[in-house]
Formats: sequence, C-alpha cells, structure tokens
Amino acid sequence: MNDIRIDDLPIRDELKGKSPYGAPQLDVPVRLNTNENPYPLPEPLVQRIAERVTEAARGLNRYPDRDAVELRTELARYLTKTAGHRVGVENVWAANGSNEVIQQLLQTFGGPGRMAIGFEPSYSMHGLIARGTGTGWISGPRNEDFTIDVEAATKAIAEQAPDVTFITSPNNPTGTAVEAETVLALYEAAQAAKPSLVVVDEAYIEFSHGASLLPLIEGRPNLVVSRTMSKAFGAAGLRLGYLAAHPAVVDAVQLVRLPYHLSAVTQATALAALEHTDTLLAYVEQLKQERDRLVGRLRGLGYEVTPSDANFVQFGRFDDTHGVWQKILDRGVLVRDNGVPGWLRVTAGTPEENDAFLDAVTELKKELDA
Amino acid sequence: MNDIRIDDLPIRDELKGKSPYGAPQLDVPVRLNTNENPYPLPEPLVQRIAERVTEAARGLNRYPDRDAVELRTELARYLTKTAGHRVGVENVWAANGSNEVIQQLLQTFGGPGRMAIGFEPSYSMHGLIARGTGTGWISGPRNEDFTIDVEAATKAIAEQAPDVTFITSPNNPTGTAVEAETVLALYEAAQAAKPSLVVVDEAYIEFSHGASLLPLIEGRPNLVVSRTMSKAFGAAGLRLGYLAAHPAVVDAVQLVRLPYHLSAVTQATALAALEHTDTLLAYVEQLKQERDRLVGRLRGLGYEVTPSDANFVQFGRFDDTHGVWQKILDRGVLVRDNGVPGWLRVTAGTPEENDAFLDAVTELKKELDA
Repeated sequence: MNDIRIDDLPIRDELKGKSPYGAPQLDVPVRLNTNENPYPLPEPLVQRIAERVTEAARGLNRYPDRDAVELRTELARYLTKTAGHRVGVENVWAANGSNEVIQQLLQTFGGPGRMAIGFEPSYSMHGLIARGTGTGWISGPRNEDFTIDVEAATKAIAEQAPDVTFITSPNNPTGTAVEAETVLALYEAAQAAKPSLVVVDEAYIEFSHGASLLPLIEGRPNLVVSRTMSKAFGAAGLRLGYLAAHPAVVDAVQLVRLPYHLSAVTQATALAALEHTDTLLAYVEQLKQERDRLVGRLRGLGYEVTPSDANFVQFGRFDDTHGVWQKILDRGVLVRDNGVPGWLRVTAGTPEENDAFLDAVTELKKELDA
Repeated sequence: MNDIRIDDLPIRDELKGKSPYGAPQLDVPVRLNTNENPYPLPEPLVQRIAERVTEAARGLNRYPDRDAVELRTELARYLTKTAGHRVGVENVWAANGSNEVIQQLLQTFGGPGRMAIGFEPSYSMHGLIARGTGTGWISGPRNEDFTIDVEAATKAIAEQAPDVTFITSPNNPTGTAVEAETVLALYEAAQAAKPSLVVVDEAYIEFSHGASLLPLIEGRPNLVVSRTMSKAFGAAGLRLGYLAAHPAVVDAVQLVRLPYHLSAVTQATALAALEHTDTLLAYVEQLKQERDRLVGRLRGLGYEVTPSDANFVQFGRFDDTHGVWQKILDRGVLVRDNGVPGWLRVTAGTPEENDAFLDAVTELKKELDA
C-alpha cells in the first residue's frame, strides 16, 4: 500500500507527472519571494478583527451570508473611493483569493472545449487554473522589454478567437502596468473575433504609478477587473479576492460558485480590514518608495531592471539565473526564480530587508564582474 | 446596458437558463431547512476562537500554511479518536467546505470526458459540482424506501463504468445511513469496471446510529471518506470540509487545489473548535435524541418517516408537497422541499423549535385528514 503514488491512481491523464504549484517555503532570515506585504496589520486592526470575528463566531452554527452583501458593499465603496469610478454592490463579487475568482470566471466563460489566452511571462496561475477547469491555454507573445506587443497580441486573438483573455496589470513577475489603450485594443480585437471575456488582473494595482483600469468596465459587459486584499491590504493570509464588472457577470459566476463559499470569519476579517483602509494605504506609499529605491539602487549597481508598478522588481540579466538565485540565498535572502530566463524577482520588503538584499546583490555584482 | 442579462454574456451553453443553487433564505421565526446545528458555539470556544484568530491576524500579511499541517494533524486525531481507525496527517486533506473537497476530487478524478454517478435523491451538490467541473453525471437508482438497490446500482456501475461514484451516508435528504456491505459491493463493482474513485460523503455521520465507514479506506486507495465541520461541530459558517484517504489521494488533490486555498483565519478557527470536540459532541447527543423524538412523534401523528441517522428527518407522504411546505411555513416554520415527490425534510432544532414544528404538523394533520 505504501508504494502507491499519485500516478498509480485513476487521475486525469493531463495531471500525470505534474507537481503542485507553489514557491519553495524555505526558512531564511529575509524572505522576499512571494510578494507579501512586510508590514504586519496594525494592532488596532488586529483588535477590530478579534471583535468582528467574536461576533461572527457567536453565529457560526448558521451558514454565512451566501451573497456576502455587506462585504461586497464595502469593497464597492473602496473601489469607488480609490479607482475614480462609481461601482455598487451589484458590480462586485468576492471569493477565497483572486485565484478562486479566476477559477469561477473560467468555469463560467471557459471550460471544456473553450480556450483562454495570456501573454507570457505572466501570472502562472492563469494557465494552471485554465488546466484545472479543462480550459485550453494559449501562450501569447510579449515584447523583449516585457510590454505587450499590441500588434502580435491582437493578431493572436484574431487568429485563435479565445473565450477568455487575461491581461495582468501590473504584470507579474515583470512588474510593469499596461496602458488603457492596450487593454482597449485587445478588448476590441477579442470582441471582433467573437463575444468573449477579457479579465484585467489588477492584483498589484495599488502600487502602480498610474491609475486603475476599472473605469473601462463602463459600457463593456465582457470586461472584468480582478483584485485582491493579499497585497495592498497586507492580508495574504486572509485569501480575499474580488472582481468588478457588469452586474450580469456577477450574476453569472453565481451559477458555478460553490454555495456559501466565503466563510463568516473571512467576511468578518475582510470587513474589519476595510475599516482601516487609510492606514493600510499609507503602508502602500512606504512600499512604493522602497520599490523605487530598489529600482534605483539596482540600476546604480549596473543591473538591468524592468520598470515596476508593483511591490516587486524584476532584475537581471544573468547567464546562470538559478545559480545567482542560489548565491543570493546563500547570503540569507530568498528571492524568486519565476523561470524567466536571465531574470529574478525581488519583493519590496521593509527598509531593513531591502538593505539586506541590496548588500547581497552588491557583493554579488563584484563577484560577477570579477 | 442595464438590460443585459446572464444569457446575453458569452457563458457556457450548459449554464444558459440555469439558476444558482441555494435554499430560499426566508425571515421566519423557526428555520429548520438547511440542517444547521441550532446550538451556538459555547462562549469559552468563542473566546478561544478570538484568541487564535488574534494570533493569526498578527501574521496575516503572510500567506497561510499552504498545506494546513497543524489543522490536518488535529483532524486526523479527531478521526482516530471517533471513527475507530488510526489516520495520520498524511491521510487527511481540508478545504473550504466539503463542497470544495468534492470539487477538487472531481477536478482530479473526473472532469471533461469523464463521468460520475450518484444514487438519487441524494446531496444535489454532487451533480452540480460535476457540472461545474465538466464531469458527466449519471443519476443512479434507489429502492422505493430510499435505500440503495445494490443489484441495480452495481449493474449501473458495471454498464456505465463511471470515473467517480458518490455514496452519501447518511443520505441527504432522505436520512438513512448506508451499510458497509453496500459500500463494499459498490466499490468492488466500480473497480471491476475500471480503476475509479469512490467517495463516501459522511457529512452527517456523527448523528448516525451506526459507525463511520472510515476504516474501509484501509487497503482501498481509491476509496475516499469526506466530512465537514458544518454539522456536528456546529460550524456551518466556518466552511471547513475534509477527507480521509490513502496518502496518494491527498497528494493528488494538491495538483488541482488553488495554492493557499485555506485562509489563516479559517485554519485558526477550526483548530479552536477541535480543542472543544467533547463539548460539541455532547450537543450532537442532544440532537440525536431530538431527532429520534421527531421521528417518533411524526409517526405517532400518522406521517410516514424515513429512518434517520442524520440531524434531519424526511417525512410524508403528500399529494401536494409544495402546498404542505407552504402551510407549514404559514405557521412560522421553514422546512425544506428538496424536490422529492411526496416528501419534505425537517432539521432537528432545539426542543422549542421542534415543538413549534410538531405543533404545526399536528394542526396540519387534522386539516389533511378533515
């Protein structure tokens, strides 16, 4: 019995030989590999979470609000305030992380016999969730500088007529935000090919130099903007993702969402965090400054750096990318090798963590140049 | 824009014209329609949840334990203690409700081009999650008394060779547990047809007169037992489902699980509840007595009742099932019409809630007999 392994089970053929997704979790002093916010939640917010969860726990024998109306109302208020476009509860849907939002969108608009496209390198979960939902995956092109090649992208969309198009802005792992004109060009190309969904994944948008593309949903029922509380809200442990779109999209995902998918404690915790938006966005400003410092210092050291609108920075280039990753790790700093040849990604941490990283890459540069 | 509806969007054809799953949530004094545990968590447990969540909230900027090792260890301990079979952390997997456990199993072992079978009437989410994962659905037969017709069931399995077989024990909405011999006969029929997964859904097992079928996983790598904390643990609001199986099954679902699917607050709350198992299981004993009282009183009134091993009772028979449901509702008690012709389902509530229900059906009986 003990020698039975995954591939001995009657699993789907396309899963055979595969490994689960996930960054290596190593016990290292400075972990700058998963784009977490380095600032713990402020203690008054921790206390408010405790209060809200205590209240929720007293009714935990009952199912949670299946439609998460209070939470969606507060998320809509946050978006209206920060993204320059009025949205209401009817425009917003929430789930366990933006991964589950994307899974629900693919179950509704993708799935067996349908195709999704992303422009790679990008957030690798788009393709993995496509696989998990039986959606075919098309790897679209990018320019050398990691911006979207509009001509090549619209051509790919016209030729392949995907059912779902993913645009990540700011892009992960490369860091640069996408212009509204680019999104509009891709949206129009997609609709010209056939009516289909376009998802703008704005997981890191609060760190951007530019504005959210949320206003583009107006008049475009097939355009969805997805968001998360993992990064700007400093709540990766909460697993709260959400989307903004035409109300019909919000209705549509409810055909596939698991009933009562969002626990009462998750809803309570997210509501507490949304009460403290101003404090949390102040941390975002600090992180943007640190991000810009990382970009400047890395360039000063002679590294190449992709322009960053996120809480992380892509830097290179290296002949032996994984070797460099290991050398930085040997100096006590864990960064991420996302499999982009020649490039690594470092998350903006606290000033002290970033200093430790900069010390490591300063030493390394001497070694590489020697 | 405002006249755009779900079916105007480019959703999958099989979702067109469909409505989201869910019991009507009506504001009624006595709600006995969703098999919730009527007892709020005891206050010491509420305080322990607050403590554990406070601790988790202080680290909420970090991703949660992706593999939920501490939680799975404690769930394994609970199963070992209560189900008469030793399981370890390597045998247990947890997700956001047993619905997500089932979704992950279907993504791994079902999916496009594959088929699942259930014996209906049963938990309707099995079929709905099959649809959501692109898995074909076969509605298998039952006897008139709602037990599984072993001969017909094994014949259906042999003919259709499903990839996943669901057995709900105790069955929902009918209430009766399934004998080990029946499960073994179906498991053997399924494996004889082809290697395939058999899922025993034990959401209500703690309320059963008989024992868990968990020991059957020994030596049967394709047999999975799924569980939930929604019912016996009085934590429907928590959304914590889990499974026990061969370690290879636990490895396999990790190929499709969304990374970090289980939030730190969910893990913390579940761990707190598991510290209070003895208290919570004492409530289960009270509910079993109330369930037996409902069965006895309903029979005494002249209703037909399906034998119940769950925290709910199926009763009938009615010519106008939905009319009777409405008449009970008119008396302030919400029960469930699960669409089983002639039958309704009532959840065992507190003694006072059950009295209100029994008063309603006593009056109703007079009316029906008049």
